[in-house]
Amino acid sequence: MSKQRTLRMECGKTTQVNYVLGTELSIDVYKPSPPRSQLFEIRFSPGIKCSVSHQQRVAPVTEDVVKSVLRKGTILLVRQDKTSRDVNDNKVTVTFYEDKSNNPIDKMTLQFTAVSISLDVDADRDGKVEENHPSKASWSWGPNGYGAILLVNCDKDDAFSSMPDNTDNLVNSRSDLKDMSRMILRTEGPQVLQAGYKFQLYISASERYNVRVFLNDRGRLTHVLGDQKLSFVANYMFGKKEYDFYVEGLTFPDKDFDGLVTINLSLLESMAVGEAPIFTDQIVFRMAPWIMTPNTLAPEEVFVCSVIGNEKFLKEFKAVVEKSKCKLTICPEYMNRRDRWMQDEIEFGYTEAPHKYLPVVLDSPRNRELKDFPYQAILGPDFGHVTRQSDVVNSLDSFGNLEVSPPVTVNGKEYPMGRIIIGSAFPTTSDGRNMAKVIRDFLYAQKVQSPVELFSDWLVVGHVDEFMTFVPAPDRKGFRLVLCSPDACCKLFKRLKQEGHGEAQMFEGQNAAPVKINEILSNQKLLNDNVYVQQCVDWNRDVLKRELGLDEEDIIDIPVLFTVDQQDRRAMSFFPDMVNMIVLGKYLGIPKPFGPLINGKCPLESAVRSALEPLGLDCNFIDDFATYHLKLGEVHCGSNVRRKPFTLKWWNMEI
Amino acid sequence: MSKQRTLRMECGKTTQVNYVLGTELSIDVYKPSPPRSQLFEIRFSPGIKCSVSHQQRVAPVTEDVVKSVLRKGTILLVRQDKTSRDVNDNKVTVTFYEDKSNNPIDKMTLQFTAVSISLDVDADRDGKVEENHPSKASWSWGPNGYGAILLVNCDKDDAFSSMPDNTDNLVNSRSDLKDMSRMILRTEGPQVLQAGYKFQLYISASERYNVRVFLNDRGRLTHVLGDQKLSFVANYMFGKKEYDFYVEGLTFPDKDFDGLVTINLSLLESMAVGEAPIFTDQIVFRMAPWIMTPNTLAPEEVFVCSVIGNEKFLKEFKAVVEKSKCKLTICPEYMNRRDRWMQDEIEFGYTEAPHKYLPVVLDSPRNRELKDFPYQAILGPDFGHVTRQSDVVNSLDSFGNLEVSPPVTVNGKEYPMGRIIIGSAFPTTSDGRNMAKVIRDFLYAQKVQSPVELFSDWLVVGHVDEFMTFVPAPDRKGFRLVLCSPDACCKLFKRLKQEGHGEAQMFEGQNAAPVKINEILSNQKLLNDNVYVQQCVDWNRDVLKRELGLDEEDIIDIPVLFTVDQQDRRAMSFFPDMVNMIVLGKYLGIPKPFGPLINGKCPLESAVRSALEPLGLDCNFIDDFATYHLKLGEVHCGSNVRRKPFTLKWWNMEI
Repeated sequence: MSKQRTLRMECGKTTQVNYVLGTELSIDVYKPSPPRSQLFEIRFSPGIKCSVSHQQRVAPVTEDVVKSVLRKGTILLVRQDKTSRDVNDNKVTVTFYEDKSNNPIDKMTLQFTAVSISLDVDADRDGKVEENHPSKASWSWGPNGYGAILLVNCDKDDAFSSMPDNTDNLVNSRSDLKDMSRMILRTEGPQVLQAGYKFQLYISASERYNVRVFLNDRGRLTHVLGDQKLSFVANYMFGKKEYDFYVEGLTFPDKDFDGLVTINLSLLESMAVGEAPIFTDQIVFRMAPWIMTPNTLAPEEVFVCSVIGNEKFLKEFKAVVEKSKCKLTICPEYMNRRDRWMQDEIEFGYTEAPHKYLPVVLDSPRNRELKDFPYQAILGPDFGHVTRQSDVVNSLDSFGNLEVSPPVTVNGKEYPMGRIIIGSAFPTTSDGRNMAKVIRDFLYAQKVQSPVELFSDWLVVGHVDEFMTFVPAPDRKGFRLVLCSPDACCKLFKRLKQEGHGEAQMFEGQNAAPVKINEILSNQKLLNDNVYVQQCVDWNRDVLKRELGLDEEDIIDIPVLFTVDQQDRRAMSFFPDMVNMIVLGKYLGIPKPFGPLINGKCPLESAVRSALEPLGLDCNFIDDFATYHLKLGEVHCGSNVRRKPFTLKWWNMEI
Repeated sequence: MSKQRTLRMECGKTTQVNYVLGTELSIDVYKPSPPRSQLFEIRFSPGIKCSVSHQQRVAPVTEDVVKSVLRKGTILLVRQDKTSRDVNDNKVTVTFYEDKSNNPIDKMTLQFTAVSISLDVDADRDGKVEENHPSKASWSWGPNGYGAILLVNCDKDDAFSSMPDNTDNLVNSRSDLKDMSRMILRTEGPQVLQAGYKFQLYISASERYNVRVFLNDRGRLTHVLGDQKLSFVANYMFGKKEYDFYVEGLTFPDKDFDGLVTINLSLLESMAVGEAPIFTDQIVFRMAPWIMTPNTLAPEEVFVCSVIGNEKFLKEFKAVVEKSKCKLTICPEYMNRRDRWMQDEIEFGYTEAPHKYLPVVLDSPRNRELKDFPYQAILGPDFGHVTRQSDVVNSLDSFGNLEVSPPVTVNGKEYPMGRIIIGSAFPTTSDGRNMAKVIRDFLYAQKVQSPVELFSDWLVVGHVDEFMTFVPAPDRKGFRLVLCSPDACCKLFKRLKQEGHGEAQMFEGQNAAPVKINEILSNQKLLNDNVYVQQCVDWNRDVLKRELGLDEEDIIDIPVLFTVDQQDRRAMSFFPDMVNMIVLGKYLGIPKPFGPLINGKCPLESAVRSALEPLGLDCNFIDDFATYHLKLGEVHCGSNVRRKPFTLKWWNMEI
């Protein structure tokens, strides 16, 4: 239904108005009629579409002029689909008669100028700003969806700034414009229009910090909306004209921001008292979400820290990265300040609009010695940065505790970009540790990778990457969930003992007391610990099966043992935790477990190889014992990976 | 799909567990099998349902024992539908064979106690707590919907308190329990159970101020959840048993609270290290919304203030209320402290659950001299009170600016409880007046009467009741929208002038300078003002037609003139504003306009009568000139009405 505008006319007078294409004028014919009138007739200039409505029955008025019976509640509806060449070149006359004679008793005249006004965006997501898309004022998901998209302009195109571009109200360079979405105000009408018409572009106060608009006046860019500017007024222009705007997204969706931004346009008419809006138009943008990249996406760049003593580790790590042909970036010591936990300070992801792809790093509120690294080394031209700060942090705020599954389908519901995995306290505890609410709120608000919360607080460090990961697979769902399994490890050691290897020792040559298989299997405390840990892992296994729609065949159990601290009853791995691996395509960098050597071979490594190699994966065991394991982390904790984005565009998801 | 629980067994051992009806145990048969085993067979005691899953193919195991081929990934699934009489009276044995001979090489045994545990609420909304409703953990709208309902316990059953019952963590009286919803934890199992099992009832920290739970132990009520209490632990009880709880709603839905409250239950098993939850259950409540009552609902009680000088008004007002047979409550001067604007301080509404109806007054942040009235005179047993406070208030925060339409259908979408009407600044202005955000957020969050915002800031006082109201009608949609119309008034006066009554005077006998029709029609400033006002009203007319799905025939125009202040360009009525009426069923109390008398009759009154009387309405004109009109208000502003609730239950709406 086109927007109706009530208009009032008077007998003996000519009413002159501006009419905007796409609207409909609604004029009561009965009320202004002279008392004696019984009949009326309507004449109108060519191109106008008139109809008469009475008691909800609408009848078109033809050009053959006929007199109709005048009844209370008779409404004249007027439309025009072409813009005017001259002011007031459209004319409608209503003539009143007492009887069927041709002697009119009075008449009233409407003259109007038809103009076309349209606030336009790329509502069909093809990278071009089309004209007056019918659904530009709403937003819907999916391949048949529509609605324009904004990027959060969180990269840094300004070489002289230390902060992302969205933190100031400037256009930071010509390339900065490419991070914004175009919006065009198109008008068409006669070369001359009555004076006193103005445009007003406006946003609601609640959106002032979500969006900024710049007017592009032949290359001169002026900040016109956002921050303290809620509305922008310009004079109506003559003839056919375009106002060119750039719209800058400022904030990702979050708890208090559903991601939708509305920009309104009014055409204002000057009146004796104030200005009255005679037409409004509206467009809607959705802020592109921040998207995580699962292990099944191709790696592009790997990050690791150089610290005192980790040269051997770095050498072995580098060899794996070289196999994968990824770029390797080593964060030097002056920048990491001995904080080797590259996984924990940042999470790589991206955001995307039809016109632009932007990798974005999510910066944890953890803020240990690595805290300046994301600002100094990652934020830059076409590399964005987003963070959420929290006064109180704990170990679960580190991003070793933040992962994402590959795409899954759960009971028919598709998650084509996977589901975010967050480690939390057990739901029944009120005093456990959890990831900061600001981060969890942020992650939930992105919507496209609906999070699953696991129980990770049973671990001293408390990160999900200590007990689970995903590896690519050529069959089934395209991946396997890899879980640590104390049960598998105990079974393996029992078999080894039965086979006569009970005196074989772990940790040979490492800076740790050697332990025999027999000693492990007779250590009742250790065995009890691992029954408990297995139950914790099984709890998560059941949640993951349910929330990711996995079958037993989708899960691989990897032998790992844990030991539980007697005081705070939390667990840490007993030997290097092989689940805590880095996944670079088919190349895996796995913590070397230093298990008992049987005929010169490590049965723990063999178990992992025999589980993963059939999937075409290349297992590389890296010695992280002294430099990571003994400091309660492993290979994955000490590295990070930037990956290729999904080929699927997020707006083509059905949500 | 029933909830699966991963269980691990071991050869040569008997595993003993507690099993909860409705779940499924998932046991890997292959992993614990002895190396040489090729075949396995499963035996189980009667009543158990076993099936074997391999590569997602699930086959039931019959009681005829047969040997099956043991393959990697073989999972045994175990269910039981009856509770145990004795501990461990269910038994499943898996025996492993090397070949088809009957010589087993090893076996493993599962013994379990089947118990039934269910956290129950009135999920089917019939006022009774049924057992284990399949949809108790979710909530859906509509006549086929399900999900339990909580009331905000905002009345005051405690005679010695000055605050609503939800402000303390006490059960305030026996009748206070009727404002709460029942929740029952039902258990069934053997008379004796292994020691060490506990129940934990818990809520998330974000819901601690939305809900409180009391345990009813044979009449002794203990506060167990809510405020600082996030979890409650009790020992598992023996045999068939019910724990009886009362759940108290604390807060209406709002910006940060979607109205849904989840209560969780876990069955905890003691372990060597910590306690592991082996079963969880969940129920969901929705907080009943606050609902407004449109003019088409039957009036029950009318409120008005007694102030110095309004005796004549009160007498005429009382006469109309007596006609309607409503109760009349007059707020005395010591309580109103000369604040006569009874409409503005409060809005009557209600909330409802299947087990209880509760009228609730919404108390405006306006807080002028009437501010204690809602606490002192309205809040009480079975009369609730809710408020939202704002540091900064303006005239648009008064509830003359808050109305609700009768039920409407708009382009096929039903609003069976109508739509809330709020007066606001014009959308294009950033510096206009608006109703406080806390109140608007509250109103939007109730969801069942999706608000429409009109433009009321063009008025000095700025209330929607100055230009619109709804009256009941026997035909069409069951009501008419009544709008003030300067245009209708000007037309009427012009006709009177044409008929020779130009010298007739307004305001005869009132404390105001008389004005002739001729003077009005020659006052160009006044005429211009009213063209502007008509455009403001027409803007709202177009919005109301669109948002309430109204036709021209649903609208009645009532003659009113306005005058616009030259300084702040805002309008006030020129003579008593007849739209600002009180609607008591068919009886209308309308401000007496004191129009020009023509043959002893007021043509303004006649115009209103001829528009409304055909609908069966009884027009009563009340003199509010000196005591209300000259103070910028009228009859409606000075009164308030408590009405009957809708017969429709809000949870039967489709949203």
